[in-house]
Amino acid sequence: MSQTPKFNPARAMQLHEIERWDIETDVAVVGFGGAGSCAAIEAARAGASVQVFEAFSAAGGSTALSGGEVYLGGSGGTPVQLKFGFADSTEDLFNYLMMQHAPQGDEAKIRAYAEGAAAHFDWLVQQGVPFKESFLDERVVEPMTDDCLIYSGNEKAWPEVAHCKPAPRGHAVQMEGMGAGAVLMQHLERVALEAGVHAHYDCRALCLIVDDQGAVAGLVVRQDGRELAVRARGGVVLCAGGFVMNEEMLRQYAPQLLRGNNPIGNPGDTGAGIQMGLSVGGLAINMHEGFFSLPFYPPSTLTYGIIVNDKGQRFINEDAYHGRVGTEILAQASERYYFIVDVDAYGSYEALNFMAADVVATGDSVEELEQELGLPARTLVNTLETYNRFAAQGEDPLCHKQPEWLRPLETPLVALDVTPGRGAFYPYFTLGGLDTLPSGEVRKADGSLVPGLYAAGRTAAGVPRRGRGYNSGISVGDATFSGRQAGIAAAKRAGCGSGPLWERRPAAN
Amino acid sequence: MSQTPKFNPARAMQLHEIERWDIETDVAVVGFGGAGSCAAIEAARAGASVQVFEAFSAAGGSTALSGGEVYLGGSGGTPVQLKFGFADSTEDLFNYLMMQHAPQGDEAKIRAYAEGAAAHFDWLVQQGVPFKESFLDERVVEPMTDDCLIYSGNEKAWPEVAHCKPAPRGHAVQMEGMGAGAVLMQHLERVALEAGVHAHYDCRALCLIVDDQGAVAGLVVRQDGRELAVRARGGVVLCAGGFVMNEEMLRQYAPQLLRGNNPIGNPGDTGAGIQMGLSVGGLAINMHEGFFSLPFYPPSTLTYGIIVNDKGQRFINEDAYHGRVGTEILAQASERYYFIVDVDAYGSYEALNFMAADVVATGDSVEELEQELGLPARTLVNTLETYNRFAAQGEDPLCHKQPEWLRPLETPLVALDVTPGRGAFYPYFTLGGLDTLPSGEVRKADGSLVPGLYAAGRTAAGVPRRGRGYNSGISVGDATFSGRQAGIAAAKRAGCGSGPLWERRPAAN
Repeated sequence: MSQTPKFNPARAMQLHEIERWDIETDVAVVGFGGAGSCAAIEAARAGASVQVFEAFSAAGGSTALSGGEVYLGGSGGTPVQLKFGFADSTEDLFNYLMMQHAPQGDEAKIRAYAEGAAAHFDWLVQQGVPFKESFLDERVVEPMTDDCLIYSGNEKAWPEVAHCKPAPRGHAVQMEGMGAGAVLMQHLERVALEAGVHAHYDCRALCLIVDDQGAVAGLVVRQDGRELAVRARGGVVLCAGGFVMNEEMLRQYAPQLLRGNNPIGNPGDTGAGIQMGLSVGGLAINMHEGFFSLPFYPPSTLTYGIIVNDKGQRFINEDAYHGRVGTEILAQASERYYFIVDVDAYGSYEALNFMAADVVATGDSVEELEQELGLPARTLVNTLETYNRFAAQGEDPLCHKQPEWLRPLETPLVALDVTPGRGAFYPYFTLGGLDTLPSGEVRKADGSLVPGLYAAGRTAAGVPRRGRGYNSGISVGDATFSGRQAGIAAAKRAGCGSGPLWERRPAAN
Repeated sequence: MSQTPKFNPARAMQLHEIERWDIETDVAVVGFGGAGSCAAIEAARAGASVQVFEAFSAAGGSTALSGGEVYLGGSGGTPVQLKFGFADSTEDLFNYLMMQHAPQGDEAKIRAYAEGAAAHFDWLVQQGVPFKESFLDERVVEPMTDDCLIYSGNEKAWPEVAHCKPAPRGHAVQMEGMGAGAVLMQHLERVALEAGVHAHYDCRALCLIVDDQGAVAGLVVRQDGRELAVRARGGVVLCAGGFVMNEEMLRQYAPQLLRGNNPIGNPGDTGAGIQMGLSVGGLAINMHEGFFSLPFYPPSTLTYGIIVNDKGQRFINEDAYHGRVGTEILAQASERYYFIVDVDAYGSYEALNFMAADVVATGDSVEELEQELGLPARTLVNTLETYNRFAAQGEDPLCHKQPEWLRPLETPLVALDVTPGRGAFYPYFTLGGLDTLPSGEVRKADGSLVPGLYAAGRTAAGVPRRGRGYNSGISVGDATFSGRQAGIAAAKRAGCGSGPLWERRPAAN
């Protein structure tokens, strides 16, 4: 390409502007993370030539930075679920995910995911991804051991527990310590390369190329300071992550997330994939939503504590998933939030200090604590009196914390300030993206599809749609699963493969 | 036009598909409501030929169905504000609107509005719109008399009262009874026609026409069963309202609003204007936001009552604007909401029954009421004890209701069920739309503008951005104000006029 216009992911080039193709392929994949690697593997397996363009010098994306947890179940149960006696029907998984993401859940996508999730576990195992056959029955954000199966969401918390049969569905990739996403990505990268995928590293996608019918013909990438025109006969699969690292987009679409202090993702989560989709008429939806969390456990003993607002009131069951707790805090109109725990729970917290919240008051009596916190007289006293009275009976009629986490709080008490913006750890990321079919095909405002364009992972609005309904493992699960579907679909458009859009396993129940 | 493709507002026609122009004009305006009429007036006054296309058989749009309140002030004060001693600086208005709509307020738009609002009042008066020089010092949603000036938002409520100098800014068009928007629209329609605007009624805009450079060349309309191609030399101004009547779009973008039972708007609020903008690369933003309200006053005496959730807790100052109260209810995770009032307040409520909430419990004692409502023991009792103890001192340290609305609640008490979906009146409408400059020019994802396209009123994301920060009169204010700017800008592109994008009045302070 001789010309060097100022490239902008939000502005597509016209086909007639392209003088020659520097690279030709069946399927071009933008981003070599969880979604991109799986798209590449499936497209290559279907017989397509595949080229992946990764902006950084290594594969991995945000998946490699994650805990390597995959939220899976249904079809009777994965082998790990079954080994520990957790039968998990497709309907249970479907209903749970629908409840988590109502009212904006995408039923077709959740259906496809629920039907294909257990087979997706088998597929990951077939790629050589290691999972230990173990169940860790603890309240953790992710295993710090090499264990596999955990409860990683709201399965055992109200109101889900009253409507959906609980099952642990977080499947962590085997690795000692946190951050097993790196192991997952090592395997997915290896498999992709073994399958014949051509990976370009340090090679940034600049913009799409669109023909005069509105079909995506390819993209422009920059490598070694040169712009290259890439022809993608089947299509371009956008797996470029979300937009959590793009402050301007956050301000425009999801400004409330900026109350957090820890954007979760890799520096490439700039929204460029979403912008490319917009540039050719793709629709972006759910753009205001995000994961916004207060990961206050471990230690799980903090779950015995209570969270109160600036009125001294409880407002959430403290055994809810940490993402729901954070999102609820974000939704409330309160100037302060406090975690109130007894000395025993505080001791285990202090040892870890995972949440990084400061002690702002202590009290040998509730009255003293209330006064130190500057709460209106008798508000916290009443809250504690009510909580303890019911907890002694194993009940929480206000917030429905489950009996296993109920025990009266005894003085002396400690209050941690968990107000967003005052030090406590509040990680966040985006849950909006391109509107896609379960196949990854990108929809336009008129409901038609952008020919030749696919999106997966956080570049698309996927299965997870709500901060309140988020579960650990659903991003990596959705990214790898939706990546596979998009790879299959793009290969098919290039005339390769003819498989179903998602795999189903015969139901065991 | 010989061809009759299936027209879709979300799919633009290409210029080369147009065989001949049936209508040619400088400026084409879609929609003859508050925004459209003002766009048409200004474009015509600038010397442009203007044609307005209105889907229904009369002008009016949703503005005609409104209370005819216009939220205005600044520049020292409007004549009505000044007559009653309310000096209102531009900075006070600016700061207040910024606070209402943070974090997603558009500073440039709010600045333009704050600077131009008082002059906009003068302009409306010049068009013959009647405003009585009177001030109604009551807590009302809109005057039921022919009075003008009211407090129509959160000016005197916490937290605004602590940060912004309060001033009444709701200016209601003079008319006995509610619904003065019809009077406003009679005048704006008359003025537009007098200015030479050609209005087509029963004439629906079907889709835009775009040239191969991406500029809007005109639109297709349907009149008497025929499709007509309209060439708009300066541009097309989309003033087609929001999308509150489009359930599919609501489900896609703002599903939480569907918890309301009364979509506010006219049947033409189908989102077609927004879809047309999307079809040519325009960006839609703030699409999840809406006005969602519990208009519980009149009678204002209900403000002496308290609102509690299913935990028996108060959560909002009941003297907040009804739109904030409704939005707060929507944001909370509670299964029930009750308005608890004494018999005196209930009597005035029953006479009007404006809110349509049912009595679900009565109690000669708080304990009895608590039991009847099925609230956990001593929760409501504690809430009332706390509320009354502080109210007796003229304080509300929990929710900051102002002293004028504080008096201890005395038994017997009545509880009204105000849970969304259980009968109470919950009107709602959308606050998302096309991303525009203060001039009405429509922005694309890459920050560039769509040449020849303008949007105003609820087709654009305007000054009002948050349900929590909505004020009565800001929609009509924003629609008429932004319509004028868009009309001026479109006329200018047609080579007519050269005025500033918004008028300023010399500041009086």
